Amino acid sequence: MHIAVVGVGLIGGSIALAARERLGARVSGHDPDPAALAAAGERGAVDVAAGSLAEAVAGADAVFVAAPVGALPAAVEEVLAHAGAGCVVSDVGSVKRPLTSADARFVGGHPLAGAETAGVAHARADLFAGATWYLTPHERTEGLLLDRLHRIITGLGARPAVIDAEAHDRVMAAVSHFPHVVANVLVAQAAGALGGERVPATGPSFRDATRVAGAPTRMWTDIYTANADALREAIDDAIARLRAVRDRLGDPGAIAAWNDAARADRRRLQSAAPGGATAELRVSVPNRPGVVAEVALALGRASVNIVDMALYPAADNATGVIALWIAGDPAAAEALLGELGLSVARA
Amino acid sequence: MHIAVVGVGLIGGSIALAARERLGARVSGHDPDPAALAAAGERGAVDVAAGSLAEAVAGADAVFVAAPVGALPAAVEEVLAHAGAGCVVSDVGSVKRPLTSADARFVGGHPLAGAETAGVAHARADLFAGATWYLTPHERTEGLLLDRLHRIITGLGARPAVIDAEAHDRVMAAVSHFPHVVANVLVAQAAGALGGERVPATGPSFRDATRVAGAPTRMWTDIYTANADALREAIDDAIARLRAVRDRLGDPGAIAAWNDAARADRRRLQSAAPGGATAELRVSVPNRPGVVAEVALALGRASVNIVDMALYPAADNATGVIALWIAGDPAAAEALLGELGLSVARA
Repeated sequence: MHIAVVGVGLIGGSIALAARERLGARVSGHDPDPAALAAAGERGAVDVAAGSLAEAVAGADAVFVAAPVGALPAAVEEVLAHAGAGCVVSDVGSVKRPLTSADARFVGGHPLAGAETAGVAHARADLFAGATWYLTPHERTEGLLLDRLHRIITGLGARPAVIDAEAHDRVMAAVSHFPHVVANVLVAQAAGALGGERVPATGPSFRDATRVAGAPTRMWTDIYTANADALREAIDDAIARLRAVRDRLGDPGAIAAWNDAARADRRRLQSAAPGGATAELRVSVPNRPGVVAEVALALGRASVNIVDMALYPAADNATGVIALWIAGDPAAAEALLGELGLSVARA
Repeated sequence: MHIAVVGVGLIGGSIALAARERLGARVSGHDPDPAALAAAGERGAVDVAAGSLAEAVAGADAVFVAAPVGALPAAVEEVLAHAGAGCVVSDVGSVKRPLTSADARFVGGHPLAGAETAGVAHARADLFAGATWYLTPHERTEGLLLDRLHRIITGLGARPAVIDAEAHDRVMAAVSHFPHVVANVLVAQAAGALGGERVPATGPSFRDATRVAGAPTRMWTDIYTANADALREAIDDAIARLRAVRDRLGDPGAIAAWNDAARADRRRLQSAAPGGATAELRVSVPNRPGVVAEVALALGRASVNIVDMALYPAADNATGVIALWIAGDPAAAEALLGELGLSVARA
């Protein structure tokens, strides 16, 4: 098996590593940035650091194009022009409708992994382990090639999920792109409301809601622009929902029902997510160094997996509450933490 | 000094504990819920578990009313009716304008602490250490009593900040109440967009943005209702901002400028927050049990304070990225983590 990767950053580099380590494939790579290509070679991500796109793609059974979203349509066309007749070509962009190639060898793709760092230095062969990897074939995609791509992606450790490109973009707008827009709106609003003169005291809800505000501009301008249609729909929908809340503010019963519905929606989304239902614990911790480590170690010893963790420190940053989302037996976890003298609440 | 606390849950109980331990005050407490009052007595939070509000308040130098937001106006009036002529009366509600008492003994108050758990079982004498504690005196508040309250709050370990009630409610709408509304809107929208049939794959941005969705209904219905005016303004402002984004989606230059401005706003809000500027690190971690503990211990040994932490696990929940917000020398932290064989990026 010969796999080519065009664009060897975090995602492309991880595909290359996984293809070599997990599939035993021969991997050729190319990157328009010579420094990135050299780094991928040094990292051992590729067998061949090809000096041109044509050289990387020649003779490949499958090509992954891991270019920025804005550069993808042209890059995919260029790869298709150089790829062989029996080669499947895919990409890893987070917006799928702009890739309108009707070439029978092309299948759009989007692995849900790795947005928190960048560069081949952070590439890992297990980046896609268990991750959803969307595939958006079009009407003329050749079945044999889709099947090959599906098997390769499974071999990389991911779970391929075939979806319509339009549905994909609408889903991504709801669960990722629009939340990024909202984070930007919230920081702009808070900066305005707080003015320049007063030190703001923002709480944990604000911190969590705005963690992705001002995400890397080049990448996100590409995404917002490429998914503009779905984002417009999401914005219109959110405006309608905000208006409905506004109209209900004088009616405590309606507000309570709306809030209960939100809790039910959140639980439903959580329990449907990969990994399944998790229990949420809140651990009050005293002013003692190393308490985070202590909590994590105690749960680790009991094979309780910490799926997610958030710290809510007091303003002196020395005390506070640790919120834990765990897979495993919450009663056992509570008992363990109780033995450490910590008070625990089930959320 | 005799301090009375009416409502002995998490906040009231922590005030009582701190008043006893840090100020050496004699503390009387009352709660309309006999079980809560008994728990406060067992916890050692109060010297006297008073059977009535009048009994708790009699002879007190200061009274803190820690009732739910919706019950506060009536509870404050009742306390004022029983409190002595030289007694200062305050509350701990997160919305301040509905408390319209013009009594010279009354000062509104709001400590920014402790929303993540509830009940006297989680009360701590250090809950307010370093926390901002807003005070909203009115025109007729007696200076001597405001000064006494100010000194008591400093004694509890908090940092009192005098602010106009209207400004307080506008700020809280921006940094807490409206983010809660937005979290509810996002989960409702995602539940709609994802439909019933498909397993949703929501990412870390969605998880962070919706962590507070469906917060405890009784408490939050009170807050939304009490702060309805400021929330309406925040909603209108957000709708205007969302419309502006919508109009710019076809203009990559404008979107890039908007995103850059959001990043600048976020940094400004972060660096102005209590605790000051923090460095943000992203640590890629391999599939190895106990790695969270290992990271936390290594930083603890080097006296690097973890102010905030978020896990971005891969879908198999065994690998991923740890985001760390640290106070201290980021270069030293990077070096330490590098010695553990972990790859670190400065965000």
